[in-house]
Amino acid sequence: METKKQNKITNKLPKVVVIGGGTGTFTVLSGLKHLPLDLTAIVSMADDGGSTGRLRDEFGVLPPGDLRQCLVALSEADLVMRKLFNHRYENGGLSGHNFGNIFISTLEQVTGSIDKALDVAGKILNIRGRVIPVTLDKISLHAELLNGKVLDGESAFMEYQLVSKYGIKKIFLEPSGDANPKALQAIKEADLIVVGPGKLYTSVLPNFLVRGVSNAFIKSKAKKVFIANLMSQQGHTDNFSVTDYVRTLEKYICNGSHTGQKIFDTIIYNTKKPPTTLVRRYADEGEPVVCTAKCLKGDHHRLVGADLLAEGVAKTAKKDLLRRTLIRHDSDKLARAIERLLA
Amino acid sequence: METKKQNKITNKLPKVVVIGGGTGTFTVLSGLKHLPLDLTAIVSMADDGGSTGRLRDEFGVLPPGDLRQCLVALSEADLVMRKLFNHRYENGGLSGHNFGNIFISTLEQVTGSIDKALDVAGKILNIRGRVIPVTLDKISLHAELLNGKVLDGESAFMEYQLVSKYGIKKIFLEPSGDANPKALQAIKEADLIVVGPGKLYTSVLPNFLVRGVSNAFIKSKAKKVFIANLMSQQGHTDNFSVTDYVRTLEKYICNGSHTGQKIFDTIIYNTKKPPTTLVRRYADEGEPVVCTAKCLKGDHHRLVGADLLAEGVAKTAKKDLLRRTLIRHDSDKLARAIERLLA
Repeated sequence: METKKQNKITNKLPKVVVIGGGTGTFTVLSGLKHLPLDLTAIVSMADDGGSTGRLRDEFGVLPPGDLRQCLVALSEADLVMRKLFNHRYENGGLSGHNFGNIFISTLEQVTGSIDKALDVAGKILNIRGRVIPVTLDKISLHAELLNGKVLDGESAFMEYQLVSKYGIKKIFLEPSGDANPKALQAIKEADLIVVGPGKLYTSVLPNFLVRGVSNAFIKSKAKKVFIANLMSQQGHTDNFSVTDYVRTLEKYICNGSHTGQKIFDTIIYNTKKPPTTLVRRYADEGEPVVCTAKCLKGDHHRLVGADLLAEGVAKTAKKDLLRRTLIRHDSDKLARAIERLLA
Repeated sequence: METKKQNKITNKLPKVVVIGGGTGTFTVLSGLKHLPLDLTAIVSMADDGGSTGRLRDEFGVLPPGDLRQCLVALSEADLVMRKLFNHRYENGGLSGHNFGNIFISTLEQVTGSIDKALDVAGKILNIRGRVIPVTLDKISLHAELLNGKVLDGESAFMEYQLVSKYGIKKIFLEPSGDANPKALQAIKEADLIVVGPGKLYTSVLPNFLVRGVSNAFIKSKAKKVFIANLMSQQGHTDNFSVTDYVRTLEKYICNGSHTGQKIFDTIIYNTKKPPTTLVRRYADEGEPVVCTAKCLKGDHHRLVGADLLAEGVAKTAKKDLLRRTLIRHDSDKLARAIERLLA
């Protein structure tokens, strides 16, 4: 009731912007949508794998996958609509595709613009807030490894054996793109901006590589919050502590010239140990991200530790091409931790 | 305004049922939806070609194509939604598919029932009235030719050279199916039932071959109206006059034992000659269906002739697999002709 009442005075609701893409952003948005907030999701456009990659190649559209996840997260429609949008085909010519991706890409073709497509999809899914692609340009993400080899395309990063062996020197967009003016405006007007959790190099950072985004982020008067991942990602963020994530992010945001400049105000991290059996089971994918004593001491950010772990175990999608980690954030715990920063 | 006002007393609106499938039914529904009627479309489930056939094969769903056409016809949603549902893919892995077909079939999979799928799709498309599959069973249409050869599957009928050469002896369903109880109820409660226009053997008649439909149709106290096609269809209805259509239909409805029993009350046919250039252009597909003096004299139905021809020329869909006839009914003229029978 409280939420509905406050909704009517939307212009007075705190403006919260979530920057990311992927499952982490889905979880944050799923929790925040229940709070009386003016919500905006700014979504990475670097995805080029799976169903999304095929639709990009075949129709020349923007990558729909992360947009879809955000739309579903913010949806207040019946369960059937959310199930429909996440439906993945398992056989026939549509195999590997996802209905929501096809829906968004077809709408983009029919309306001639992703803006209009998201507008229509948002109405059908009855979303709280809005979903904004970080750029409307067709960008492509690359990684230069420490051995000089360059991996082309976001999906190429999934060859983690290779990435693991040499390590990432840097990532870059080629071609890059200009920031979506709507994304810049949302960043400028935000009261609070949440970055992460999510895959650092493939879901989170690509947003800040788009021309104009980092600068707008630095300039914004919003409270800037980073939510650390629960688990490191093999080949990408091996042995990363909470502050390693922050340092890497801030270095990219400052365009490589990180000289101790503090960009984020607050870092939220998980303090609850995941069950040992789960940690062991996923030892080949990564390990828990911790905030060590050293990390706590040397860091000048406001560090907020809390139990953020989901109790239940997230299901692995049937025949999913990628095994999903079963160690997940709890969307409501995340939302409460963020809400406290607005008080 | 009049329409909206009358809409509020839905239970007092005349109940009109349209039985068919395909473009003819689309045209009838497009016109009737503007009138203050309680509208129901009963749709053939015999289609097995193109996008529809692939979805049937791959997902084991009911054929979505004709359902989609009816939903779009009855839609009062924005143009973009109607364009979206009719969008046909021209390249890539989705080539030949139609978005609306994918939408309906995926919803059927997700909800586990075509009823729920049509309910959701109907809401999204904001339809006037309802769309009912004639059967919920998986049926298959076959034609026995006069040389004894049997063509299996509705799409096999498109080999019109073969059909043309020998002629159709009879059509039948194998497997057949039981009528959808909702279809039987609509037929029973109708004030007026419109049959056709449409391809006689592949869109119209298959409805009456479903167990229970013909019997319910005969028993119904509704005024029964047949709308004759504008053009005959090569191999199927060569040289058919208006009453040839009616006679064939009534023979099937009476289960082959047509002994002059009059089933239809009124036959509506077109009296306006299509432009000669168009007739010539489509000479290889069929020719204008006329109501000859002989036909007028020998027929005991109420025959209503009127100018029903669309002025403009319907566009041929780009890269459409089947060339569509450009001689079309005008949906508003049809609706007015039907409305007069309700007075």
